Amino acid sequence: MATPETVGTLGEIEALKRTVSRLNQGEHAIVGSGDDAAVVATTEDRFVVSTDTMIEDHDFRLDWSNFYDLGFKAIATNVSDVAAMGATPTALVVAIAVPASTLISDLEAFADGLRAACELLAPGAAVVGGDLAASDKVFISVTAHGALNGLEPVLRSGAKVGDIVAVAGTLGRAAAGLALLASGNTDAVSAYDDFVAVQLRPEPPVASGANAASAGATSMLDVSDGLAKDAARIARASEVSIHINRRDLDGFVAMVEEPARAIDANALDWVLYGGEDHSLLATFVPGSKIPREFKPIGLVVEAVAGKYEVSLDGSPIEAKGWDSILG
Amino acid sequence: MATPETVGTLGEIEALKRTVSRLNQGEHAIVGSGDDAAVVATTEDRFVVSTDTMIEDHDFRLDWSNFYDLGFKAIATNVSDVAAMGATPTALVVAIAVPASTLISDLEAFADGLRAACELLAPGAAVVGGDLAASDKVFISVTAHGALNGLEPVLRSGAKVGDIVAVAGTLGRAAAGLALLASGNTDAVSAYDDFVAVQLRPEPPVASGANAASAGATSMLDVSDGLAKDAARIARASEVSIHINRRDLDGFVAMVEEPARAIDANALDWVLYGGEDHSLLATFVPGSKIPREFKPIGLVVEAVAGKYEVSLDGSPIEAKGWDSILG
Repeated sequence: MATPETVGTLGEIEALKRTVSRLNQGEHAIVGSGDDAAVVATTEDRFVVSTDTMIEDHDFRLDWSNFYDLGFKAIATNVSDVAAMGATPTALVVAIAVPASTLISDLEAFADGLRAACELLAPGAAVVGGDLAASDKVFISVTAHGALNGLEPVLRSGAKVGDIVAVAGTLGRAAAGLALLASGNTDAVSAYDDFVAVQLRPEPPVASGANAASAGATSMLDVSDGLAKDAARIARASEVSIHINRRDLDGFVAMVEEPARAIDANALDWVLYGGEDHSLLATFVPGSKIPREFKPIGLVVEAVAGKYEVSLDGSPIEAKGWDSILG
Repeated sequence: MATPETVGTLGEIEALKRTVSRLNQGEHAIVGSGDDAAVVATTEDRFVVSTDTMIEDHDFRLDWSNFYDLGFKAIATNVSDVAAMGATPTALVVAIAVPASTLISDLEAFADGLRAACELLAPGAAVVGGDLAASDKVFISVTAHGALNGLEPVLRSGAKVGDIVAVAGTLGRAAAGLALLASGNTDAVSAYDDFVAVQLRPEPPVASGANAASAGATSMLDVSDGLAKDAARIARASEVSIHINRRDLDGFVAMVEEPARAIDANALDWVLYGGEDHSLLATFVPGSKIPREFKPIGLVVEAVAGKYEVSLDGSPIEAKGWDSILG
């Protein structure tokens, strides 16, 4: 039997070539991979850019995620940040470092995941450049670009008292998936594999970002670290408080009650504090035409005594959630 | 004595805040750090983008480089790639992962290095966003953006038979610095500390990239992996061969002869095969007004029998040099 090809046996150039050939082309690359830099077309005199990192044993585990999953998630989490500005993703660059012993077939699966996520979540967008290096642990860094197409960027800081708080996408499902994996309960993992899939290959509502911007959203972010923590970020940046109605979370809670029962977890905790669904949390002027994929969950209210709080039915909730240093 | 603050004691948000406050503002950020993404101004309907990674114990050693050096080099190597397209750097995003035990003062020094390199090498450009994460080893990933300001991007593939091959910047100095550090000869390291400085804090001739594009350069790249290897890249992409005149390298060789003698190394080898000077290698139409910082070193000649070769005074030289996987 032939020895399987690895990144170390092929070297940087050949390994990159094999990977790049599997990517989609996209609609915005004037000069793509293979030169010192790529050239990306824009339709206006500005562009949106965001970067994010995924590190083995901190952000993912190779016994839970395969390389296809990693490629998919790397795109998903980054186009979500672009969408959260009200922009439409156009082009990404991807740096990956892997041990030299990594199979070329794994690197190819990573490329397939990149491509699949671009095609599914951000049609027209593509990876236009990248970097491959050697390291002991897998390290992935993605920078995503987007076009505002004439819309104004939606910041975290624009929420006004009286605005409606709404969510596009799911809450708690990715946390359910993570808890299922961590439970070691293989029966529960296979019974609720669609929750595990949300954790491994999230599908953020990317188009809803531009929809929200079109509808005049006053603030927006992507819920990467949990509703409580990310709502608190809007509150702090906008110098307001946010009131969430418990009954408006019923639908989200109901969606994760079954897996919560299966592994004896708290469904509401997942909805409030679970990150990585990469849903969009936005605020809208009352009476405005809120895009129908956004579900209202609360109101922007005045901050009392300079405290920018998030409360649930009037009781303050802690802004706890994921911190990429503290975990 | 107070316990020194670390990334782990402060957490992601506070540590990032302390770092970001030390950065320069630049002239191109419409929305800077602190939101889901940044918004960067462009002057035309396209932008240049390049990404590169630096990994502890693969690309740098913490006993040789301090965090200021790492910040400086991260900017330098990336703006060099943007310059190599003929573009002027405008904005960068920086992702860094460090052990939780890393001192905040080190992270601040990293930010100071980022700022110093932007101000020195790419005036007007700035870091507009980033990411901080935890990892066992230090990982740095930078994505740099640039504006062509009406010029056409200069690719690797445009060299034509008869063109003049020329270099802006130094050759072999960074390799000399690396060899001095690796020699363990502390006397030689301090005697030739300006060579060590080129290795730790390279100063690529960034403005020469746009100058070359203005002068109609037919191909260009930045010499990151050594003259032999990078000239071979132009040869292959352009389907030509490149003839280098040994006597035109005399000046480069003379510059590194002293440290070569001090540690018994070969000065010409450094000039031919040493990477990381991040000089610009370009080709120009004969008779064109070559910017004076570009020193002619050879000619583009016809490839014989489909072999795209680099030769020195007629003898083929091997395209050896740095490979980020193979070393």
